Amino acid sequence: MRTAKVHRIPTASPDDVSGLAAAIASGAIAPEGILAIFGKTEGNGCVNDFSRGFSVSALQALLRAHVGAAADDICLVMSGGTEGGMSPHLLVFEVAEAAPGGPSPALAVGRAHTPDLPSEHLGRMGQVRAVAEGVRQAMVAAGIRDAGDVHFVQVKCPLLTAARVREADARGATTATSDTLKSMGLSRGASALGIALALGEVAEAALSDAAICADYGLWSGRASCSSGIELLGHEIVVLGLSKDWSGPLAIAHGVMADAIDVAPAREAIGTLGVSTGDDTIVLAKAEASRSGLIRGRRHTMLDDSDISSTRHARAFVAGALAGVVGHTDIYVSGGAEHQGPDGGGPVAIIARRIVAEQR
Amino acid sequence: MRTAKVHRIPTASPDDVSGLAAAIASGAIAPEGILAIFGKTEGNGCVNDFSRGFSVSALQALLRAHVGAAADDICLVMSGGTEGGMSPHLLVFEVAEAAPGGPSPALAVGRAHTPDLPSEHLGRMGQVRAVAEGVRQAMVAAGIRDAGDVHFVQVKCPLLTAARVREADARGATTATSDTLKSMGLSRGASALGIALALGEVAEAALSDAAICADYGLWSGRASCSSGIELLGHEIVVLGLSKDWSGPLAIAHGVMADAIDVAPAREAIGTLGVSTGDDTIVLAKAEASRSGLIRGRRHTMLDDSDISSTRHARAFVAGALAGVVGHTDIYVSGGAEHQGPDGGGPVAIIARRIVAEQR
Amino acid sequence: MRTAKVHRIPTASPDDVSGLAAAIASGAIAPEGILAIFGKTEGNGCVNDFSRGFSVSALQALLRAHVGAAADDICLVMSGGTEGGMSPHLLVFEVAEAAPGGPSPALAVGRAHTPDLPSEHLGRMGQVRAVAEGVRQAMVAAGIRDAGDVHFVQVKCPLLTAARVREADARGATTATSDTLKSMGLSRGASALGIALALGEVAEAALSDAAICADYGLWSGRASCSSGIELLGHEIVVLGLSKDWSGPLAIAHGVMADAIDVAPAREAIGTLGVSTGDDTIVLAKAEASRSGLIRGRRHTMLDDSDISSTRHARAFVAGALAGVVGHTDIYVSGGAEHQGPDGGGPVAIIARRIVAEQR
Amino acid sequence: MRTAKVHRIPTASPDDVSGLAAAIASGAIAPEGILAIFGKTEGNGCVNDFSRGFSVSALQALLRAHVGAAADDICLVMSGGTEGGMSPHLLVFEVAEAAPGGPSPALAVGRAHTPDLPSEHLGRMGQVRAVAEGVRQAMVAAGIRDAGDVHFVQVKCPLLTAARVREADARGATTATSDTLKSMGLSRGASALGIALALGEVAEAALSDAAICADYGLWSGRASCSSGIELLGHEIVVLGLSKDWSGPLAIAHGVMADAIDVAPAREAIGTLGVSTGDDTIVLAKAEASRSGLIRGRRHTMLDDSDISSTRHARAFVAGALAGVVGHTDIYVSGGAEHQGPDGGGPVAIIARRIVAEQR
Repeated sequence: MRTAKVHRIPTASPDDVSGLAAAIASGAIAPEGILAIFGKTEGNGCVNDFSRGFSVSALQALLRAHVGAAADDICLVMSGGTEGGMSPHLLVFEVAEAAPGGPSPALAVGRAHTPDLPSEHLGRMGQVRAVAEGVRQAMVAAGIRDAGDVHFVQVKCPLLTAARVREADARGATTATSDTLKSMGLSRGASALGIALALGEVAEAALSDAAICADYGLWSGRASCSSGIELLGHEIVVLGLSKDWSGPLAIAHGVMADAIDVAPAREAIGTLGVSTGDDTIVLAKAEASRSGLIRGRRHTMLDDSDISSTRHARAFVAGALAGVVGHTDIYVSGGAEHQGPDGGGPVAIIARRIVAEQR
Repeated sequence: MRTAKVHRIPTASPDDVSGLAAAIASGAIAPEGILAIFGKTEGNGCVNDFSRGFSVSALQALLRAHVGAAADDICLVMSGGTEGGMSPHLLVFEVAEAAPGGPSPALAVGRAHTPDLPSEHLGRMGQVRAVAEGVRQAMVAAGIRDAGDVHFVQVKCPLLTAARVREADARGATTATSDTLKSMGLSRGASALGIALALGEVAEAALSDAAICADYGLWSGRASCSSGIELLGHEIVVLGLSKDWSGPLAIAHGVMADAIDVAPAREAIGTLGVSTGDDTIVLAKAEASRSGLIRGRRHTMLDDSDISSTRHARAFVAGALAGVVGHTDIYVSGGAEHQGPDGGGPVAIIARRIVAEQR
Repeated sequence: MRTAKVHRIPTASPDDVSGLAAAIASGAIAPEGILAIFGKTEGNGCVNDFSRGFSVSALQALLRAHVGAAADDICLVMSGGTEGGMSPHLLVFEVAEAAPGGPSPALAVGRAHTPDLPSEHLGRMGQVRAVAEGVRQAMVAAGIRDAGDVHFVQVKCPLLTAARVREADARGATTATSDTLKSMGLSRGASALGIALALGEVAEAALSDAAICADYGLWSGRASCSSGIELLGHEIVVLGLSKDWSGPLAIAHGVMADAIDVAPAREAIGTLGVSTGDDTIVLAKAEASRSGLIRGRRHTMLDDSDISSTRHARAFVAGALAGVVGHTDIYVSGGAEHQGPDGGGPVAIIARRIVAEQR
Repeated sequence: MRTAKVHRIPTASPDDVSGLAAAIASGAIAPEGILAIFGKTEGNGCVNDFSRGFSVSALQALLRAHVGAAADDICLVMSGGTEGGMSPHLLVFEVAEAAPGGPSPALAVGRAHTPDLPSEHLGRMGQVRAVAEGVRQAMVAAGIRDAGDVHFVQVKCPLLTAARVREADARGATTATSDTLKSMGLSRGASALGIALALGEVAEAALSDAAICADYGLWSGRASCSSGIELLGHEIVVLGLSKDWSGPLAIAHGVMADAIDVAPAREAIGTLGVSTGDDTIVLAKAEASRSGLIRGRRHTMLDDSDISSTRHARAFVAGALAGVVGHTDIYVSGGAEHQGPDGGGPVAIIARRIVAEQR
């Protein structure tokens, strides 16, 4: 029987790994048990956000010192942008041997790496199917048999660079776009639809190249995708509930219909039977609605040429969710193509069950 | 017996007065009854925010066409910055003859204009006392006898320009600062302490020139101040409850201890006996805590050289409050020196009482 | 015989028309002679730049007070963005009766207004032809017979709004895009090609709907276009040399091959036989090269998610040109689709000829 | 006899050291000869610019792999902000054995590291004297005997953090400020005055704690200072001419009186007897004038709450200087307290002498 631990570690700067190093040194974290690390870093979360790469670079150096080449299997998903009052931090997902008699089912964590994606598949059905297959593998790794037990899927996906487009061209292949920035959205969108396909949220017949980043009526209520220049395949982390795992932690999720729809977060907390509190973990997506409206009223996020709409949206949604859970160590990321409905998005809660604490 | 009406009118741009013009044309608003107009405009809310002036210019042209020189008595308080999902809108405060038998006490509105402030008094006790006197006059105008019945005071205060500093110098007087931007904060801070003095929140003995924008343990829980280049005195609007007024609207307030402290807003709503809803009016202040922390966790608002901390704070606090009331037509303004505790601020709710609707 | 005067008037804020008012009051400017006003205003030059509209609103109020409805014929072209050290100012183009015996040919100014453009023509050949026809009319108005005597053409062109797209849809017409921001670029690009067509810089056979904002090998070396929400047709101002005009002012132009190519500005000044100096007027376009390179070296303007590339480009090109002419009252505007080669753009110089001063 | 080499290496991202690695691999650069590396990195150049630290981290890893602990002696001075068209690049200063018979005097490079500065000395005369002593040591290291032969001094200086202020407090010492951002300016200003003192540009009697960042009439025409969190002492690099060095490279400098004063750069180039060209190296400082004016005309850099004035200034001055030298691989940095007159700053040119090439 496995048990999942999630360590929330504040950081003083993007390259600050002192908290993680101290936790390893004290034995609070066993480095060989680390499956994945998510992080909020204090960059702009957009194209020229070097805080993500700086953080990954520092984490890799530390992890390699402890576990050698196995460090490369650890999924490192840094999300840039701590707008508003969000607090920069790391979430370290660790697997360990469970103590006997713990509550089960419990939080389960599985991961998968897909093969490198041919550039001409990016933003198309080829990517959708590759991600769907990876999600299924990660479910197996997590010991989750029923898609209904999956509550959050984080995917780190590739993007196109000028060099990658040229390489495809040289092979006679055509990429979905030659615009680097656009390729980031297409990659996130296709990945989200891959998750939706694997989880049965969308039928394969409804999907096509043309629907990707076009038909936003198709979406996953559990997908969170971010694209990065540093990989050619996908890193996939599935979070859910499984009888193969025991322990105090559980997870639930909901779908925010818009940026101020906090009811699903409250309901997810209620489902878990926990009181909101300082150690609640929140994972959510934020975006400015393409309609330009929130509940019928105009917002100005898409017209602000000084601040990217993703930065506005993260600050605003983080405020709404922090108002619910009462702390600011929350993971709200932007760029939500096919990840929840227009202007809304998935929100997952990981918490220590009250019932667990009574044992 | 007077009755107060508050009209919330969406705007399509800073100079959009079509909604107000239509309301006047249809008879929904009697222009001679307009006491004050607050507005959220979609600029950056900082030094080079021309959306405020553009809005004031358009409103004055419309109001002069209807009421002539009396338009100059109408307090126009535009707050720049609709970060996150805030929706640009106007709040038109109108006084009318009350229908007999309405519920009372009810929302009361009073205003005052102070004489021009000598530049050497700005940011000093001279300004504190001038504002305190103005608040007392506005309370009389509102028919509010007890400071405990005041729930929100909006002050528009002057700032220093290079020319005003030179004029004072020429008279042998010394201004508190020669830095224009700094003078904005000093003016807001001194105005807030003037409100605190008038409302008995701070004892006069505790106040001094040295305490202004220095001892942030001194604050008003009902003050909202913004400084503007377009006036030399102060425009003061007091909102509260009075037996001289009747009608369905009531007001309550609370003080947010920090940026995510939404409990006081919930309690104010509870006090009013209303259900939160689409027509609830929210007036609040937002700022990044000087401590760099929210409930012990680091925020990055003060270190972001790309986005002013005031913009971060408005987006974040607006998210927290919109999550409570369920709409985005809320008035959250920045620059909260002595307006609530560090990182927190006053929040007032105006709503239609359930009891009123039953009549 | 006509003579052209150009008055350069500094402004203290977008709505500051005090300098123009004073010049009219003193008789330095005869308001009925004003043909056009160009201005640099201190907004962000992008979507939510209200400094342009605020300026236009203030200018119209002043001009209507002087010349009544004829004010609507005056072309008001405000360019937002005074990045770097550019200084906000107005350029007032006035026509007057020439004193006998002045040097001729001299600076000539002509203007035209096109009919409202059907929305489905925007960004297509319909707009190209409408602008070309307008340029020809403005040349006639300016008394310029040979396209080679045209040195700068400023066009203010319309954009699409959601309402305009819907109106076209309702008539069964399809617009080139439904994206407002994209329509601004398409409108500028089609207008620039209309100028190129009228001036014989591009053959009509080379033009097509598909080439607009796609084949950037096609461009005008004398075009400067900006799109605005406030008009449905085009306002066109042609500047050149004509024997119908006499006086001390002359104009020349060059085409910058890239952002640091200041030689054409130097040559234009040399052509005029003037020494660079405080009263030289500079009109130029700036943009970040789509190639991502300047003379083979990478620039970062297109990857900066905090500052729009147009703001970077204006600051940088303004620095290069101010270094040549020795002052900062220069008119550098952004958004240069088909206005000069990729990353470069037209630059025109208006100056008082040395020969003229000798008379 | 020593000879100085300066290698200009473009970078594709802040952590891109591939160009330097390749130059070392090919033998073009001998790593043990590297004295200092200056770099322009593509962050915002302000408080939350992580591109500098990311670059330093990557450079240190590479250099340690080649020269071990000696890597810590190499001065790494990264300047954030490639606004406008500036191109991210590294300048690697290398010393080597000179070939016999080369032209002399030639470019000389010397460096020094000062001891850790007690926090209470920062921004005060203690820092001024410590830097002056370091500059004298670096002159000795460079073989420069006459201060008149020094043409540029780059200093990387410390700043205060909350922890450093507390540590001083605990010892009963008082720091000049407790504001971290302010400490950066004070440290740059005191360092610049230390350079001025060492070079005899300012008399010690004219200096005092009170003059630092207050009396801007005191300045060095050869100082370039940047503060960083990563050091407690100072890293000092002196560039000049010395008979102890021979080779093709020479250096000259001038002082820009304001942001568009390019004549001193032209004159420095003339002094060197070189034609401007692709391989000219430019080192300069940029800032927005505190007066708000450039040659009597208003600029808006200090009032722009969306873009820091330092970013405006770098873009603008870089445009002016790139217009002179014809390329964009130039090193223009911001924050110029006591480094040249208000709004202006030092500019140094390193180039291959024509005379040298004739030998």
